[in-house]
Amino acid sequence: MALSLVRQAANRMVVQSCTQVSLQRTISLTSRCLTAKVINGTALAREIKDDVRAEIEELVSMGKRRPNLSVILVGDDPASLSYIKNKVKAAAYTGITSELINLPSDTSQEALVREIERLNNDHDVDGLLVQLPVPEHMEEKMVMNSIAPHKDVDGFHTLNVGMFCVDQKAFVPATPAGVMEILRRSGIETFGKNAVVCGRSKNVGMPIAILLHADGIHETRAGDATTTICHRNTPPEQLALFTRTADIVVVATGIPGLIKADMIKPGAVVIDVGISRVMDEKTGKTKLVGDVDFENVKEVAGYITPVPGGVGPMTVAMLMKNTLTAYKREINFDHYKRSLGLA
Amino acid sequence: MALSLVRQAANRMVVQSCTQVSLQRTISLTSRCLTAKVINGTALAREIKDDVRAEIEELVSMGKRRPNLSVILVGDDPASLSYIKNKVKAAAYTGITSELINLPSDTSQEALVREIERLNNDHDVDGLLVQLPVPEHMEEKMVMNSIAPHKDVDGFHTLNVGMFCVDQKAFVPATPAGVMEILRRSGIETFGKNAVVCGRSKNVGMPIAILLHADGIHETRAGDATTTICHRNTPPEQLALFTRTADIVVVATGIPGLIKADMIKPGAVVIDVGISRVMDEKTGKTKLVGDVDFENVKEVAGYITPVPGGVGPMTVAMLMKNTLTAYKREINFDHYKRSLGLA
Repeated sequence: MALSLVRQAANRMVVQSCTQVSLQRTISLTSRCLTAKVINGTALAREIKDDVRAEIEELVSMGKRRPNLSVILVGDDPASLSYIKNKVKAAAYTGITSELINLPSDTSQEALVREIERLNNDHDVDGLLVQLPVPEHMEEKMVMNSIAPHKDVDGFHTLNVGMFCVDQKAFVPATPAGVMEILRRSGIETFGKNAVVCGRSKNVGMPIAILLHADGIHETRAGDATTTICHRNTPPEQLALFTRTADIVVVATGIPGLIKADMIKPGAVVIDVGISRVMDEKTGKTKLVGDVDFENVKEVAGYITPVPGGVGPMTVAMLMKNTLTAYKREINFDHYKRSLGLA
Repeated sequence: MALSLVRQAANRMVVQSCTQVSLQRTISLTSRCLTAKVINGTALAREIKDDVRAEIEELVSMGKRRPNLSVILVGDDPASLSYIKNKVKAAAYTGITSELINLPSDTSQEALVREIERLNNDHDVDGLLVQLPVPEHMEEKMVMNSIAPHKDVDGFHTLNVGMFCVDQKAFVPATPAGVMEILRRSGIETFGKNAVVCGRSKNVGMPIAILLHADGIHETRAGDATTTICHRNTPPEQLALFTRTADIVVVATGIPGLIKADMIKPGAVVIDVGISRVMDEKTGKTKLVGDVDFENVKEVAGYITPVPGGVGPMTVAMLMKNTLTAYKREINFDHYKRSLGLA
């Protein structure tokens, strides 16, 4: 098989990277070494869910009730329904009871907040989340901040965000937590490495950057990586300059095909958090894609996550883990109550 | 005067940078163009304090009481006393009444928290801060989180941190706020630029990185810069690689002389947040220095802040601004109370 010039160059560098990246990989000059290890998010998610399930089985065998997750959906957006379906399925798998409260799309914010407060007060509800996005007549932050922080398994309540940002044990949003688990469980070192996060959304990109750069000795077990945050106002040539220096690239922009092969250092780790539904011209049907030009980037990268089957399943698994954490009341919010009570 | 090779090379690049960096600077091949504009933090701080003073004078002329700032110091650390002296002086200048509550160094954390709560409840106290560091037998986070968020002019209460990190109007810690004001008032563009923050402390480096990278259209008026966070676990050669790509370098590490001339792109902006007291071998006395090799870096940089006289005075001025904000009750914490009340 004639190798293109790019692949030949990649060969030389990737052979070197092969030895560095993982002792578990077969080191050879065959084409297998040239293609990234495709991280199986579904399999890693299963490991996490199995751990959660085992712990719940033990609690149940000791006579305790099961943890519960309550999901509120306003409206009937198909993507939201699809995400919820995955959450309910994972809850059933792990032994978490769940309920879906589906409110009409014209529900007022006040009515939604009343429902949230009803569930805040319900002692049989451990985890509570409102599926995003909320309808346009509502204000997302106000809704998120109505959820009792100790039930906030999505980790979007501002107090949870603050605790997380100062390296205190908190509910870590499931997608960022899932990205860190992918790195850990794949044996990918982050300490002192160059990491680039593409995308700065408050729910995904920003917390990923926090988790990657912060000190690993504290409660969030962060990554100690030198971390660059790129975003929509990063000029394209600067984006490529940074991604090419990166050992780890995490992409969460929602722009299909943003990350191309020539933007990735041979042997680097590419974590694709993007998820967009696009038209497949060949089949005439829609399909899910990430932010990475997967077919070409996998010829350069050392590790890559597919879409679907990469970060997505990990997000759901970490949500189950957060629900178990909520049930066990592991995160303490008591000392915040007094200072706010006096406000 | 014979010019060193480094300066000759710098000449060529800086002449080019001169034209880019500021229309207000004299463009010439004389040595003046080669030396960075030294940003006068004292003068900028005076502008800010004058604005605060003018606003307070107007309130007083309308018959309103003056804003008040209460400072608690546990122990008698000389550096802390020096910082407090600057704060009290600035308060007097701006027309803010202030008080210093000096507790003995062996005060228990419980006794400190009781004092904080007394001041939380005192309607004549607008801004309340505990001078850091607290003694070793105390836990800083617990102390910070005892301060009522609406009086938290240092912005260290976890709820303020969270609000700030999600781009909501909050008390922004004075040093990060001062850094942004230096950039703004010096006409330095951050949009789409490469910024590097050296240091990731939760009180200084991390909030500076948040302010630099985030979206300028939201409430924190952030910088939209592509932002890299370097820290103690960044290998030295990587640190230099990143600082050399930076248009803006903010250094907050506490390591004198960390940033050297060959680490800075000609014409770049260097903001020195460091402050250490070192022995001056020539005089046999101690002196204050920053993290930047000032004498040499100023020959390469386009803008530089001195230590002292740069960021320090700005920090104090922004604290006065925060105190006025607290007095005016501009930041609303009401909607957080309910979700925590039910915890």
